[in-house]
Amino acid sequence: MEFTWKKDLLLRSDLACRLYSAVEKLPLIDYHNHLSLADIGENRRYTDVFDLWVAPDPYKHRAMRMCGIPEEKITGAATKAEKFAFWCATLPKLLGNPLYIWSRMELELVFGITEMPCAENAADLYQRCNKILKEKEITPAWFMDRFGVEKACPCVSVLDEVSALQNNPVFSPSLRGDDMLRPNASWLEKLGALTQMKITDLASFKGAVEKRIDAVIGAGCRFADLAIDNGFVFYPDDGENESRFRKALEGTLSAEEGEKLFSYLLVLLCGVFARCDLVLQLHMGAQRFTSTRLRGLAGAAGGFAAMGNSVSISSLCALLDTVEAGEAGLPKIVLFSLNPADDAMIATLSGSYSKDGVSGLITQGPAWWWCDHKKGMISMIENTASFGTLWNFVGMTTDSRSFLSFVRHDYFRRVLCQQLAEMVQREDLICTEEELVALAKKLCYENAKSNWR
Amino acid sequence: MEFTWKKDLLLRSDLACRLYSAVEKLPLIDYHNHLSLADIGENRRYTDVFDLWVAPDPYKHRAMRMCGIPEEKITGAATKAEKFAFWCATLPKLLGNPLYIWSRMELELVFGITEMPCAENAADLYQRCNKILKEKEITPAWFMDRFGVEKACPCVSVLDEVSALQNNPVFSPSLRGDDMLRPNASWLEKLGALTQMKITDLASFKGAVEKRIDAVIGAGCRFADLAIDNGFVFYPDDGENESRFRKALEGTLSAEEGEKLFSYLLVLLCGVFARCDLVLQLHMGAQRFTSTRLRGLAGAAGGFAAMGNSVSISSLCALLDTVEAGEAGLPKIVLFSLNPADDAMIATLSGSYSKDGVSGLITQGPAWWWCDHKKGMISMIENTASFGTLWNFVGMTTDSRSFLSFVRHDYFRRVLCQQLAEMVQREDLICTEEELVALAKKLCYENAKSNWR
Amino acid sequence: MEFTWKKDLLLRSDLACRLYSAVEKLPLIDYHNHLSLADIGENRRYTDVFDLWVAPDPYKHRAMRMCGIPEEKITGAATKAEKFAFWCATLPKLLGNPLYIWSRMELELVFGITEMPCAENAADLYQRCNKILKEKEITPAWFMDRFGVEKACPCVSVLDEVSALQNNPVFSPSLRGDDMLRPNASWLEKLGALTQMKITDLASFKGAVEKRIDAVIGAGCRFADLAIDNGFVFYPDDGENESRFRKALEGTLSAEEGEKLFSYLLVLLCGVFARCDLVLQLHMGAQRFTSTRLRGLAGAAGGFAAMGNSVSISSLCALLDTVEAGEAGLPKIVLFSLNPADDAMIATLSGSYSKDGVSGLITQGPAWWWCDHKKGMISMIENTASFGTLWNFVGMTTDSRSFLSFVRHDYFRRVLCQQLAEMVQREDLICTEEELVALAKKLCYENAKSNWR
Repeated sequence: MEFTWKKDLLLRSDLACRLYSAVEKLPLIDYHNHLSLADIGENRRYTDVFDLWVAPDPYKHRAMRMCGIPEEKITGAATKAEKFAFWCATLPKLLGNPLYIWSRMELELVFGITEMPCAENAADLYQRCNKILKEKEITPAWFMDRFGVEKACPCVSVLDEVSALQNNPVFSPSLRGDDMLRPNASWLEKLGALTQMKITDLASFKGAVEKRIDAVIGAGCRFADLAIDNGFVFYPDDGENESRFRKALEGTLSAEEGEKLFSYLLVLLCGVFARCDLVLQLHMGAQRFTSTRLRGLAGAAGGFAAMGNSVSISSLCALLDTVEAGEAGLPKIVLFSLNPADDAMIATLSGSYSKDGVSGLITQGPAWWWCDHKKGMISMIENTASFGTLWNFVGMTTDSRSFLSFVRHDYFRRVLCQQLAEMVQREDLICTEEELVALAKKLCYENAKSNWR
Repeated sequence: MEFTWKKDLLLRSDLACRLYSAVEKLPLIDYHNHLSLADIGENRRYTDVFDLWVAPDPYKHRAMRMCGIPEEKITGAATKAEKFAFWCATLPKLLGNPLYIWSRMELELVFGITEMPCAENAADLYQRCNKILKEKEITPAWFMDRFGVEKACPCVSVLDEVSALQNNPVFSPSLRGDDMLRPNASWLEKLGALTQMKITDLASFKGAVEKRIDAVIGAGCRFADLAIDNGFVFYPDDGENESRFRKALEGTLSAEEGEKLFSYLLVLLCGVFARCDLVLQLHMGAQRFTSTRLRGLAGAAGGFAAMGNSVSISSLCALLDTVEAGEAGLPKIVLFSLNPADDAMIATLSGSYSKDGVSGLITQGPAWWWCDHKKGMISMIENTASFGTLWNFVGMTTDSRSFLSFVRHDYFRRVLCQQLAEMVQREDLICTEEELVALAKKLCYENAKSNWR
Repeated sequence: MEFTWKKDLLLRSDLACRLYSAVEKLPLIDYHNHLSLADIGENRRYTDVFDLWVAPDPYKHRAMRMCGIPEEKITGAATKAEKFAFWCATLPKLLGNPLYIWSRMELELVFGITEMPCAENAADLYQRCNKILKEKEITPAWFMDRFGVEKACPCVSVLDEVSALQNNPVFSPSLRGDDMLRPNASWLEKLGALTQMKITDLASFKGAVEKRIDAVIGAGCRFADLAIDNGFVFYPDDGENESRFRKALEGTLSAEEGEKLFSYLLVLLCGVFARCDLVLQLHMGAQRFTSTRLRGLAGAAGGFAAMGNSVSISSLCALLDTVEAGEAGLPKIVLFSLNPADDAMIATLSGSYSKDGVSGLITQGPAWWWCDHKKGMISMIENTASFGTLWNFVGMTTDSRSFLSFVRHDYFRRVLCQQLAEMVQREDLICTEEELVALAKKLCYENAKSNWR
């Protein structure tokens, strides 16, 4: 897409431009995001730009906090117009931050607006955007069409109703499995009610989650995700997990015991995913507990999470080794690590496990969360190439709550094409242009797509 | 400043040169250093180049050790002329190390000497430099004038006499607080004597340090600093710290108990700094214990410290969260981390805490200590831009014991301008040149200066 | 060497080319590798390209696994021709990985083949290569001549017979010491038999290993190596190690006690190396336990090891400090760390210990194992330059099991020359071309060579 405000954005050589024109119009596969199931279900018509551009994007809230905007004007009681204005006033200060570029891409690609937002033009922009929303029917379906989305995979829990997504050609659920790793009494009760099964032990728990996972797969699911946060330690099964599970049912499980049960259920779920041929996205290394104050004001996913320290490779290896020893072996796993200091270590791990006939059994995922920008993407591409195989790289996903974030696929494709062109120039890649185009297409579309058969 | 030995040093494009000419002559704000209070107090006239160029710079001692120079010729009994000669002989071997460039900048900007020092010309250089020192009155005041220093902030302890700095337009104390975190009987006795207060418990301790901090603030202090070294663990208050403090007073506190009291006092001091509106520099991750032999020969700050492992982000978050929950909330904090593998993690943390109306409450500081060179600076600029906000970056300080180290501000400005110009060329920054100049001025001068009101 | 398939491979400026032509033909010093002593001893004539190109290179096995090749076709029962074909089919997928370039260098420099291997031409290539092996007598001696190897240092254990290497002008043993750090009853029995000494305690153990080390030194050894793997913790001597050693002799030592004895013996061996003036290569941070399944199929060194987390700097410092306090002080140590996130930390450590008259007492080694490629090498060069002294860098070694891997010295020289030229262009290096050539020669040959006197 050519931007009015910047011709050939991020593409700095003829080769980069040629590569980009070969992938620019490929459909999007967004295999993991947090788009609203409710909005999708009703194909909600948006009427206020704030609801699209600012409210569902905690990256923006975070940036406003860094610039001292009062919380009231970010997630608090201020009006939408006011909050919109404070966001516009913040944007010019983000020079160098990915939000600076993304936000302008979003404004141009959705609203056709090319000016730089700022304090002075905020009121005007607010009115103009809302006028467009009045005139044009902008809905989830509109976004799918605008951005050429072939597959978008919003997260669902096993407790969610997914029948609405059944047979939907575009939306395919991505199974968020974290609640299954920390089951408590009320959650288990809901699971029992939903499956009409009596959950009394690990076997009946497994049966119930398998039933629900089957339902999610029936609605088109191909990807699952689990999170192991900063400080994760893997505890091998010590034979006490049946008793721990009973305590979870009774609500008497201690935090420490909970961590051990977590490891056990992680292995159990990985085995289920392997048997069901789901691709597991393992999200590693978030430090979610930072400011208790902000957690109270903005909620658990309010954009104040931090990057954790390095993931424990011995724990990760023990987890993978235990899963591999199970009946179904390892599922295909995409490793998302948050701390870029781990990029080389994680890329290297892709050569430590294998399955006959499976190319890319363990791969490093795309730059994730706070790393989802040019610097993070380049680190991922370079490390995967040097320590793993770029060929197997599954490509970009937004992981976003905002329909506007699809612009980031275009951003990714530009960064990728520019980076591949630079690697050719540096002789990190030595190949024909035809081979290069083939590689770029795999990384922008085909590798992700290949997970639907 | 144009160097005879290298025109447009480190500036490799027209844009970089134009940016540099916009910031080149801005005054220096050196908000944290270890310049000698005694030298400043008496405005010492230097008569031997060794005392200026080699003796107060442990970076140089370290480099000489790496090249096998006997300790006697570095910090030992050899004459100044001999040690000067061994340093000159070492310098050509440091090709690629920042000392190679800094040392030449120092020689040219202070002594007007442009040759490359080496074993062969050492004796001649020694004589020429000392001749200059005989002819020209070179003193702390001369350096302030030569380098256009608007503010220089040498460290002081709460036990130091600071009245000499009162009303000094240039020198403003930087409060080094580490001794307050590990109080012992004799130190507490001095504090009691100085404040004429009887220190018997935490409350009277707090009262006494507040009295002294008020005195330091009265002498113009705006910045404080504390160090949490490699291996730091935060211990939440368990209610035993009053009793631990009593043991510290009695000299019966164990090392392990000392670590817990350390955490408690860290929170207490951060609260005091917040209330007094001091900016806290948190220096993180030094491994100070390496060679016992060198510690004996060269003293605790003898240039043999190492870089620690990654800082524990969960401990750091727990510390900040605890301080935020206190009465005055968080002070403005500049995070200095020594291990560049942490740069992304530390930059990201700037979005995890906030205070209404305070832009840049938590920011990543400039490249520090062993990282204070082009590679370290670029990493800091790029990570702050991608994971935080460059706009809030507080800018360079030397942290040095040497008056010659002010050349590093010029080095920083060159690196910054070259880096910003490259970021424009790579489209990491998309803005007008006017906006770019405004950003460069903030990072070279205005942001640091804004802490004086 | 000029490659038919790529003129001036990896050299992108005139300066880089000039530098390369100054070092291109310098002899090779490969101071640490795993070449087969048996093959060297009999000067084995190779008759199947698979035995040279694929079988002894676990990097290639690993890459095949990443691409889903069944283990049977990698290390299993398939024929050599089949396995060769699967490797050829994998190679085009490794675009961006160092194997892609190395493998083509190997084919051209040894077999004169310039086509890109792939599934289609695999059978043809297999026949052509084997025809060449029939016509040309290709042996260890041939490789030494082809690649201009002045010194090659295959690993030996103190239990190995090394008399065959005595007075060999090229092959000089590299002492692999890991078995001495984890002695068990049967190993100690062999050591006793070989030395005709009765090993009953630490003193007699030390006597026996010193006797064997003397024998290895008598066969020309200059380098030793020891490994401290991921998770290494240094335990200071608690006075219990005599009793632990007795338990090791009796076979009753627990794993935990074994770790404490390991630390003790590490200090003991470092002291012996210092006294004997051997250069210690400390290999740090491998995570060797990953897939139990692959360990069973491919053996302990089968190419599935991972990169460990950051090395504990406090443990490493405590180890070095303890060795320094010993009678002979520190030996010269080359630190090889596997995780590139540690590069700055390890480079910095070179300034934390010193010995009068020894330049480069502690240095960072070349990019090692999974890091041994352009990206890894550049990180090492840049970090050593910025945090240490490039001048003292000991240069490249292959650490390989394959005679074809000597091409990597040429790869290293190209990367180094290109990097030095870029550093000149960026003004990271400011010097005359003569000085630059002198530096390049030190790093390609002279520094490694200087360890033989």
